[in-house]
Amino acid sequence: MIPQYDIQLDDRGRLRHFLTIDGLSRRLLTEILDQAEGFAGVSEQRVKKVPLCRGKTVANLFFETSTRTRTTFELAAKRLSADVLNLNISLSATAKGETLLDTLRNLEAMHVDTFVVRHPDSGAAHFIARHVAPHVSVINAGDGRHAHPTQAMLDMFTIRRHKGRFSSLRVAIVGDILHSRVARSQILALNTLGTAEVRVIAPRTLLPADVRTLGAHVFHDLAEGIRDVDVVIMLRLQKERMRGALLPSEHEYFQLYGLTEERLQAARPDAIVMHPGPINRGVEMDSQVADGPRSVILQQVTYGIAVRMAVMAMAMGAPPRDAGEPQDE
Amino acid sequence: MIPQYDIQLDDRGRLRHFLTIDGLSRRLLTEILDQAEGFAGVSEQRVKKVPLCRGKTVANLFFETSTRTRTTFELAAKRLSADVLNLNISLSATAKGETLLDTLRNLEAMHVDTFVVRHPDSGAAHFIARHVAPHVSVINAGDGRHAHPTQAMLDMFTIRRHKGRFSSLRVAIVGDILHSRVARSQILALNTLGTAEVRVIAPRTLLPADVRTLGAHVFHDLAEGIRDVDVVIMLRLQKERMRGALLPSEHEYFQLYGLTEERLQAARPDAIVMHPGPINRGVEMDSQVADGPRSVILQQVTYGIAVRMAVMAMAMGAPPRDAGEPQDE
Amino acid sequence: MIPQYDIQLDDRGRLRHFLTIDGLSRRLLTEILDQAEGFAGVSEQRVKKVPLCRGKTVANLFFETSTRTRTTFELAAKRLSADVLNLNISLSATAKGETLLDTLRNLEAMHVDTFVVRHPDSGAAHFIARHVAPHVSVINAGDGRHAHPTQAMLDMFTIRRHKGRFSSLRVAIVGDILHSRVARSQILALNTLGTAEVRVIAPRTLLPADVRTLGAHVFHDLAEGIRDVDVVIMLRLQKERMRGALLPSEHEYFQLYGLTEERLQAARPDAIVMHPGPINRGVEMDSQVADGPRSVILQQVTYGIAVRMAVMAMAMGAPPRDAGEPQDE
Repeated sequence: MIPQYDIQLDDRGRLRHFLTIDGLSRRLLTEILDQAEGFAGVSEQRVKKVPLCRGKTVANLFFETSTRTRTTFELAAKRLSADVLNLNISLSATAKGETLLDTLRNLEAMHVDTFVVRHPDSGAAHFIARHVAPHVSVINAGDGRHAHPTQAMLDMFTIRRHKGRFSSLRVAIVGDILHSRVARSQILALNTLGTAEVRVIAPRTLLPADVRTLGAHVFHDLAEGIRDVDVVIMLRLQKERMRGALLPSEHEYFQLYGLTEERLQAARPDAIVMHPGPINRGVEMDSQVADGPRSVILQQVTYGIAVRMAVMAMAMGAPPRDAGEPQDE
Repeated sequence: MIPQYDIQLDDRGRLRHFLTIDGLSRRLLTEILDQAEGFAGVSEQRVKKVPLCRGKTVANLFFETSTRTRTTFELAAKRLSADVLNLNISLSATAKGETLLDTLRNLEAMHVDTFVVRHPDSGAAHFIARHVAPHVSVINAGDGRHAHPTQAMLDMFTIRRHKGRFSSLRVAIVGDILHSRVARSQILALNTLGTAEVRVIAPRTLLPADVRTLGAHVFHDLAEGIRDVDVVIMLRLQKERMRGALLPSEHEYFQLYGLTEERLQAARPDAIVMHPGPINRGVEMDSQVADGPRSVILQQVTYGIAVRMAVMAMAMGAPPRDAGEPQDE
Repeated sequence: MIPQYDIQLDDRGRLRHFLTIDGLSRRLLTEILDQAEGFAGVSEQRVKKVPLCRGKTVANLFFETSTRTRTTFELAAKRLSADVLNLNISLSATAKGETLLDTLRNLEAMHVDTFVVRHPDSGAAHFIARHVAPHVSVINAGDGRHAHPTQAMLDMFTIRRHKGRFSSLRVAIVGDILHSRVARSQILALNTLGTAEVRVIAPRTLLPADVRTLGAHVFHDLAEGIRDVDVVIMLRLQKERMRGALLPSEHEYFQLYGLTEERLQAARPDAIVMHPGPINRGVEMDSQVADGPRSVILQQVTYGIAVRMAVMAMAMGAPPRDAGEPQDE
């Protein structure tokens, strides 16, 4: 375990911050998945709410706009009965010259319990976690290219729900690995959970230099890489993150790496297709696949609420939730 | 009943979506009014809140800004103890190229129960209702020129509260019928509820071609049209909706169709004056009328909360609220 | 007592609006501090919430942006279990030509209980309070240069918590007295509460003409004015409020009036340092002081929630909160 990631755990080894998959044990990742299993039932109840975090305060600190991500965290917090503050903080005009740390100190002084942080710079969530008071938890909701760990965990939850044990699975991640904050987290999580084989499928220009050391087999050809996999994870083409001419055109990208029903035939007959959304239809995949019987893309959204409830409840020190107990209050 | 409006009812004939007055039966409109009667008491209580929709999630999907309308729905939902998400969706920059339907699918996957939709295009709420999942309700909070049915129902509630039975009433609607999303809903609701006589008073340029087929007597002269009516509904002059020179000036409009105490003398002595707000003082009416003893304009706002609570509770399948039961939890 | 301030009290002498310190009795200010003492414990509980204002509606009416102030009121209201509406009202584009009074009338008709008002014009909160319905309370969250009374009261609470009885204290207020909406409220509150000596320390250009009549000793030299004081209140340099060349430069301001550890030696050994935040580090004080052992700046933020809970609960007529009762519901 790399020492700088110890920051995520308290002195009894329980989750305090959730910043990255890096350094977290299989036991802890499994605990998150087990907790999420309990919360998945909450959203199916007539009363979609549990009182676990009543009287707690969650602040959504968004240094870049992401209505979609903010909405999932806001809903998860409200379904835990927490109070939610939405704070959109402009980086260009840091209000009245107040520094980031002064902003944090002020929110801590207001007894905010959890900061959900979205930031365009890699490492921002770590920086904040290193500086918060002992009673405060930080959850990374995406920092630059670095990590988006709740997204990775909802992917793991989706795979476990649909495919069972990781040790018998082949999983392929397809697309712009280089600019994706999710891909790195996914590879780490899959390996930590003991996945039989993790593959990445991408053009050379969209692969990070260290991809092999992360523990993934590299393929440049979709037809070859997809063969016999149980799970296909399509990444979103981060158009706005790409600089210069790494790709000739969206059309050519689709020709080479876009998922179609025909291409999907090479995978196992019961393979599932995942995507973090929002989909660029006709770029990463065609609509037939996105809306087809193997797509579990909308289930991912549903499970995302459960996983975020689990992570927030664990970080706020709520007692473990028994998946078997009656959910309705 | 026109088949395409069946979409508003479930297979047991109960309200599922609330998109338009068109096609709804007198029994159903009366049920909404009766339910609203029960909720009108809630806002008078010390604790202005009932637990009917606790654990439900209401998403305000606003494709155009309307703080006023959004506020009334937000308050109504909170007083039903629902959780509320406010989502302002820019049409020009549909975030990251996500389509409307993908946005809907995602919110459904998060187990949102009700979408309150405001959209500049006629028919948008119907379009959304046709595509949502079976567990989701859609409430139209104004779509282009087409309909604004909760506004029409709060007008009906106001009339019933102040004037009693519709079958003995003469009601005049005055102003820009052509560009009003409320006028069409009002005429339909008044006729469905059995109003003795519905009149519209407007210049020829501000009348739709089919107004007579809707069941309204047309007047072009205010003095004549207002004679002996029990209810005067003034429409808002939708300046921003008018294109070109349909009217010479606001001043001239007031000269011809503006309501003054003097002109109001022609109505019945106990006539009430209504307006959906916000009032253009000195255009649709002068302040003496707006703030005078016959004005029930602010009561309309109050009743608006009760009507929206009723519609949301019915659409979310809450058990009927007995107006006679003790309101305080 | 100046008659125009009677508006703040109901006919039984209890707090109805909270607009200014001006005209409020020592008994009432002490009652606010005593109530806040009870609420200070709430934020320390596991469940940071009391049901005192459940079912009440608080509308944050912000005519200028102040995320910081809005956040503290929003949190305070939520911890009282009230429902909160955030309304940012643009002064330039008053929506659809609706007047301020029509906006107020509408919110009253929706049974909003309390308006928290932030406005760039002095007197705006009074204007609103003079026009609201009998059941509505107005709390001034800052109006132009005039007043910011909850800020002044949280300062008083901080002083009482840390220093005890006002009658034995020397308090110095340092900085831009002229443009500060807080300084005037502070001087009034300190004198009403019987503070032994109130000093203001500022250049002549940043002092109002009437400062002596407010009951403060004037110093132009920091070293002299700070001698033997128990409390140093540093004001924020309101750069954006200053017109023209009242000050040569921020650097020169710091040379003359910036607080350093060395200068603080002249105060009493147990003197505390306060600042309303956000701090301009290196302008009003250096970081050594801001983060040093005498600084109670973050406690001020914490107490601010308790004071705002107290004022809102009192204005909404919640029963008095006994500081000794068990806080956890």
